[in-house]
Amino acid sequence: MGKTLAVSPLAPAQFPDLPTIDGVRFATIAAGVRYQGRTDVMLAELAPGTTIAGAFTRSATRAAPVLDCQAKIGGASDAGAAILVNSGNANAFTGKGGVEAVEAITAAVADVCRIPQSRVFTSSTGVIGEPLPHERVTSVLSDLNGKLDAGGIAGAAKAIMTTDTFPKGASAQVEIDGKTVCIAGIAKGSGMIAPDMATMLVYIFTDAAVDQPTLQTLLSRHTDSTFNCITVDSDTSTSDSLILAATSASGVDASSSDAFSDALHGVMLNLAHQVVQDGEGATKFVEITVTGAATDDDAKTHGMAIANSPLIKTAIAGQDPNWGRVVMAIGKSGAAADRDRLSIRFGDIEVAKDGWRSPDYSEDAAAAHMKGQNIVIGVDLGLGDGKATVWTCDLTHGYIDINADYRS
Amino acid sequence: MGKTLAVSPLAPAQFPDLPTIDGVRFATIAAGVRYQGRTDVMLAELAPGTTIAGAFTRSATRAAPVLDCQAKIGGASDAGAAILVNSGNANAFTGKGGVEAVEAITAAVADVCRIPQSRVFTSSTGVIGEPLPHERVTSVLSDLNGKLDAGGIAGAAKAIMTTDTFPKGASAQVEIDGKTVCIAGIAKGSGMIAPDMATMLVYIFTDAAVDQPTLQTLLSRHTDSTFNCITVDSDTSTSDSLILAATSASGVDASSSDAFSDALHGVMLNLAHQVVQDGEGATKFVEITVTGAATDDDAKTHGMAIANSPLIKTAIAGQDPNWGRVVMAIGKSGAAADRDRLSIRFGDIEVAKDGWRSPDYSEDAAAAHMKGQNIVIGVDLGLGDGKATVWTCDLTHGYIDINADYRS
Repeated sequence: MGKTLAVSPLAPAQFPDLPTIDGVRFATIAAGVRYQGRTDVMLAELAPGTTIAGAFTRSATRAAPVLDCQAKIGGASDAGAAILVNSGNANAFTGKGGVEAVEAITAAVADVCRIPQSRVFTSSTGVIGEPLPHERVTSVLSDLNGKLDAGGIAGAAKAIMTTDTFPKGASAQVEIDGKTVCIAGIAKGSGMIAPDMATMLVYIFTDAAVDQPTLQTLLSRHTDSTFNCITVDSDTSTSDSLILAATSASGVDASSSDAFSDALHGVMLNLAHQVVQDGEGATKFVEITVTGAATDDDAKTHGMAIANSPLIKTAIAGQDPNWGRVVMAIGKSGAAADRDRLSIRFGDIEVAKDGWRSPDYSEDAAAAHMKGQNIVIGVDLGLGDGKATVWTCDLTHGYIDINADYRS
Repeated sequence: MGKTLAVSPLAPAQFPDLPTIDGVRFATIAAGVRYQGRTDVMLAELAPGTTIAGAFTRSATRAAPVLDCQAKIGGASDAGAAILVNSGNANAFTGKGGVEAVEAITAAVADVCRIPQSRVFTSSTGVIGEPLPHERVTSVLSDLNGKLDAGGIAGAAKAIMTTDTFPKGASAQVEIDGKTVCIAGIAKGSGMIAPDMATMLVYIFTDAAVDQPTLQTLLSRHTDSTFNCITVDSDTSTSDSLILAATSASGVDASSSDAFSDALHGVMLNLAHQVVQDGEGATKFVEITVTGAATDDDAKTHGMAIANSPLIKTAIAGQDPNWGRVVMAIGKSGAAADRDRLSIRFGDIEVAKDGWRSPDYSEDAAAAHMKGQNIVIGVDLGLGDGKATVWTCDLTHGYIDINADYRS
């Protein structure tokens, strides 16, 4: 990352005031893994009794730390746990050396935190294919351990950034049986965003008590309608990892609480939206809702075909209500469509109906909607009850600048 | 098309000197369908005895003229035939009005050319969703008919252009039984290029005699390894049409000639490459060869995942040998891959081998290859004998300029 990027125009005004989650402490440090002059290693320490769920990329070339996490998720333990993340180097496509780096780091974290190695989860994000200088990580672990702080989550959100232009956080509080349960999460991600299973790096913490199988079920269900419904550039990372830790420190069992499930979903969707809002070069936040599809899967396929179309994303960047390109994307998606039943809306404006331009269509009204920062595209297939909503951003000169000029 | 685009730096030095095909005459005219000050309607008249094969987009939202052509291809007739093409308006997503426009135009062409309406094939290319002012086409048919000229193919190549920056033509001559058979073809296409079945608009003519079923078989087979192996932007047109007409005027039966088949393949590949070389904003021509895949289909899936990746295309634009992004694309493609058997080459330089950076890798050598205009990426999966080659271009600021700023 040879230069500093301007903060996304879609960024929230400020990092949110996240609640402290009992049972979790954070520390960050500048280890110089690749970046200079900024923090690049984050340690989260989790108290004994914490249950952990995870979702990870399905990439066939996924990175060594991802494979290690996948092997460990689901294992039962009353011991504490730890999450260690470095930015600047993804430790992906690094062969045996990559596996050795994960082994060295997880062993060292286990030693410093006095927990089993099977309870140490690591993620690495940054350049692919470069050996990870893992001694730069292991050499700072004692210092990190001495800095652990229950209020350190904002710093953690910064340490895991790569091409992100702002740190991402979200939280929720839920009342269960008269007691308050808190959820707080952080995320990083900006390019190579077309999650397939989980996404980029996301860490969510709660002081609720939730048994591990239930926690995993909740996480997987909500991932499908949040992180798996966003795309920046159709490119799927080798490192996507989402970890959810429930410390049980509140003493409140949330395993069967719908309110907890809804709140968790809200935090995940908020973080997913922030990833899109920090999409490389983004100037518009785009919501695409597809209804009337033959199935929900078909609706999502159409939605993603629209969200990933370079022609649509450039038209949005140019503030052009070019709905013909939406017709094109639906046609190419491979999911069922009948041209003559198709209706399309931009915001509240019906631009096409029953397979042709709407008789009431006003190009001026559609153009006015496109000038906004939040673009809403609605498509109705007229075939059935299938529906889906996905989110993306526009494709601008900024994306070319960021990706043609240097390696993240 | 509100402004004139600079000619692609990848354009051939000049339009080729195409042979006259006995049995075909061309005429063009400026009908003002949408563009002003240039020809925008092309008529090709085909002599009695001509066999015709076609391949068309599989888009679910394909345009009215495409549906009409598909219904007519394969019909036997000793009558002559005609191909009429307009640029500026795709007559796509135009409902009943679109069907009526096709009916009006094909009826008028049949009348003027004194052939059955079932032998009139039309294509329209340009903006989607606008009603086609078909009377602007029908009103110039008499004039067009009076201008028919056997040497008019170069003018025809120009009249069918939209965002193309140069006209595209290719030819071949084959000796069969001591006689010469000629093939000449023209194409248009620059954006919305990810053909699925055929591609953009392509017309190929030969004076060979080939029975219709054989002609169709040849066309379909070669389409899979030519037009269906290119992509500019992963977006599939609603109008892709490829028509091959064999006039039989040479009196030479080429139905079982391997030399004719090879020559036809060569013309198709040449035209497909020219479409990529005129990719919107393109500055680099990229050939991607995948070997060692489990199947040929898997090889093509991997190749297309690489060719369509915005991160790879922007890296190529930036002359960055960012092979980690190639690893990413293989991982996300969905086809079989084993990270630890993967090898990658840029030109002659081995950058990755057996799942890690090659021990001999020289970033300077790879960077030097990326500075060229022709980029070659080789991937070996190490799994089987499947192989495929696909072609694409880079993704540059020019693509954003062209597609964010105006409608083609």
